[in-house]
Amino acid sequence: MIRPAELIERKRNGEELGADELGELILGYARGEIPDYQLAAFCMAVYFRGLNAAETYALTDAMIRSGRTLDLGSAIGRKVVDKHSTGGVGDKTTIAVGPIVAACGVPVGKMSGRGLGHTGGTLDKLESIPGFAVDLSVDAFVQQVRDVGLAIIGQTDDLVPADKQLYGLRDVTATVDIVPLIASSIMSKKIAGGADAIVLDVKVGDGAFMKTLDEARVLAEAMLALGRHANREVVCLLTDMDQPLGAAVGNALEIAEARATVCGEGPPDLTELVLDACARLLALSDLGVDAAEGRRRAEAAVADGSALAVYERWIRAQGGDPAPEALPRAAVIHEVKAPRAGTVTRLGAIAVGVAAVHLGAGRQAKGEAIDHAVGVVCHVKRGQRVEAGDLLAEVHARDRTGAETAAEEVLAAYELGETAPQEHSILLDVLA
Amino acid sequence: MIRPAELIERKRNGEELGADELGELILGYARGEIPDYQLAAFCMAVYFRGLNAAETYALTDAMIRSGRTLDLGSAIGRKVVDKHSTGGVGDKTTIAVGPIVAACGVPVGKMSGRGLGHTGGTLDKLESIPGFAVDLSVDAFVQQVRDVGLAIIGQTDDLVPADKQLYGLRDVTATVDIVPLIASSIMSKKIAGGADAIVLDVKVGDGAFMKTLDEARVLAEAMLALGRHANREVVCLLTDMDQPLGAAVGNALEIAEARATVCGEGPPDLTELVLDACARLLALSDLGVDAAEGRRRAEAAVADGSALAVYERWIRAQGGDPAPEALPRAAVIHEVKAPRAGTVTRLGAIAVGVAAVHLGAGRQAKGEAIDHAVGVVCHVKRGQRVEAGDLLAEVHARDRTGAETAAEEVLAAYELGETAPQEHSILLDVLA
Repeated sequence: MIRPAELIERKRNGEELGADELGELILGYARGEIPDYQLAAFCMAVYFRGLNAAETYALTDAMIRSGRTLDLGSAIGRKVVDKHSTGGVGDKTTIAVGPIVAACGVPVGKMSGRGLGHTGGTLDKLESIPGFAVDLSVDAFVQQVRDVGLAIIGQTDDLVPADKQLYGLRDVTATVDIVPLIASSIMSKKIAGGADAIVLDVKVGDGAFMKTLDEARVLAEAMLALGRHANREVVCLLTDMDQPLGAAVGNALEIAEARATVCGEGPPDLTELVLDACARLLALSDLGVDAAEGRRRAEAAVADGSALAVYERWIRAQGGDPAPEALPRAAVIHEVKAPRAGTVTRLGAIAVGVAAVHLGAGRQAKGEAIDHAVGVVCHVKRGQRVEAGDLLAEVHARDRTGAETAAEEVLAAYELGETAPQEHSILLDVLA
Repeated sequence: MIRPAELIERKRNGEELGADELGELILGYARGEIPDYQLAAFCMAVYFRGLNAAETYALTDAMIRSGRTLDLGSAIGRKVVDKHSTGGVGDKTTIAVGPIVAACGVPVGKMSGRGLGHTGGTLDKLESIPGFAVDLSVDAFVQQVRDVGLAIIGQTDDLVPADKQLYGLRDVTATVDIVPLIASSIMSKKIAGGADAIVLDVKVGDGAFMKTLDEARVLAEAMLALGRHANREVVCLLTDMDQPLGAAVGNALEIAEARATVCGEGPPDLTELVLDACARLLALSDLGVDAAEGRRRAEAAVADGSALAVYERWIRAQGGDPAPEALPRAAVIHEVKAPRAGTVTRLGAIAVGVAAVHLGAGRQAKGEAIDHAVGVVCHVKRGQRVEAGDLLAEVHARDRTGAETAAEEVLAAYELGETAPQEHSILLDVLA
């Protein structure tokens, strides 16, 4: 039996730990035999000393072995693709990608999470659809992927339980922002969830966990290595999160925008990201197409309405009402107008995300209730020119006071200048 | 109210924390409001980022405020001196110093600890005296200091409770060897215990926590600074712990050796350290003498039997029988002989300490019972020449098997060479 204090000390001293040792540490923790305080000290030592590739594999393997695993591919008799985002403000990509990819004939079965802080969660967004259920059994989940081609549910408790436990601990011990632990947390869930091929969307910038492209590349490389180690095909998109993605930030507002994107009526940056992710997923699928052909098929599924048809079937299959009119609406809609003429040089993602949280769209602590109707719609984005009095954004609020506070926060998120900022695509880099 | 995770993160990032923040962290922990895992992560961050002087003061102040404090000087109407050792193998200095200083007319009231691992504890040694009680009430303790001039008891639970809690946590999270935390742990207890002046014996070498003189100086400076901050007079002796102190290692064996030293019949290194510590304590006392005069008075108290008289009064006052014959004896005494001629170039302190632990003289885990009778007596020390077959050491054991194993361990602790090692005093440096 390992002595946890000795392992902590050796990691603290910069030594490499063995695969068996890390396995026992994680599995002993998952079994409740090794206490929180030892893992907390271990994670902080890892913050300073890191984990090398072999250690990160061992840690991730142990995380996976802490619970059950799915083999979706075998269950469905098809190669199954998955998509994961590291999280940002206004990121409803998955909700649009799922129906388009499924409409192209590739099954998508995905487990998603809830939001915390200024980044939202796919589950919270889906729950703003009246009746939509995220807590399907694994059997029902597999059956729905088979029948409808698409299912998105909450992560079940028995899949990578060690991650749930460890993430909760890291959240309160200042050990969240550690690349090998982030990579291991994401990839253990993807691998245990049973997808054969995965498109990872690593967000970069103000509203993301990774503030610079270099940081994002380090995380992407770590996740690619874990994917290779587990014989999964993985592609990493590095995408811009300096400003909110699309226009809508807030649960029901984002569902409406995702649906519009499925119909070909989404905002340009979101549409570009959604179609690119679809292209990569189709290229990884068993259709035998390349990304260019994947892109054409994704565009066709949007154009001919088949993606919207899958969207509606999917929402209904999980008990929801897919009509946009069914979504909850906020009592107060408050317009944010440009105080003077200028070009938007910056639209702070975090500031908009925090304004949405203050409105009630997100939680400041785990388990808090959220208001699905409220949020922010940014009608003007970086690089666009406005005149004084033009509409910049709308705040959807419960009451006038909340609306006014949020409007000030949103206005402060806009920087107006004279020189247009350099244009760049939402897609910053692709690693595979 | 502070957010502990935020404090951990700021320390992790190398920022300085405020005195109020550190105070709330420690006191919140002591009150059970802040969990172990957050302190564990904090201590590991401190391992890498350190604490500056102001932070160390604040931490120590909070530790002191976590419980009650004594003002021994006011209670007794005299300036009270204290002595503390950072711990080593065969360190029975306190047990000889107390009676000599008290015989010179300076009251000594001391709280001591138990041993763990290869270093023994003063309380365990004293408990090898039949009848000796270490759990006096604070009132009885003060009364005995007043009446007898000397009392040594276990630290009461209500004095610096945060230290007890934090030390237990550090012990299992690889966060013991952190200078500001060690300094704070020692000095908070000394300051709360009420001594006006303190002689600190910082052990250096193989058998000590600080392996090099430089490391020991860093710890000594940190403790001196904490003493100054709390208006305590402090002197730090840096003393050799490359080999066991004196000859005896093991509880009753060490009591016998301490008593012999009080009578002027102790081994030379222990005698030198004891008299030097007495000289410094008397120089810090209200006698108004310098260290040279203190040394003369200490030597006189040993020579004229007054120190032994105080020793006997003290042991009886705490219920013990001071006669050396009353001490428990081991069933088996096994001689360790020199396998060949040579000069002892090294006598490993840890190796001898570990052999004693294996015999049952110390604990490998908290709360274990110990055998007071067993141990090792090193008749030959570094620099001494032996012929083949000469007696090196004696092992005092419960049975023959244990004796033989320990004898091998002790023999392995001796290195015999041809060249005599460089001679140096037990006293390596003095800082004040």
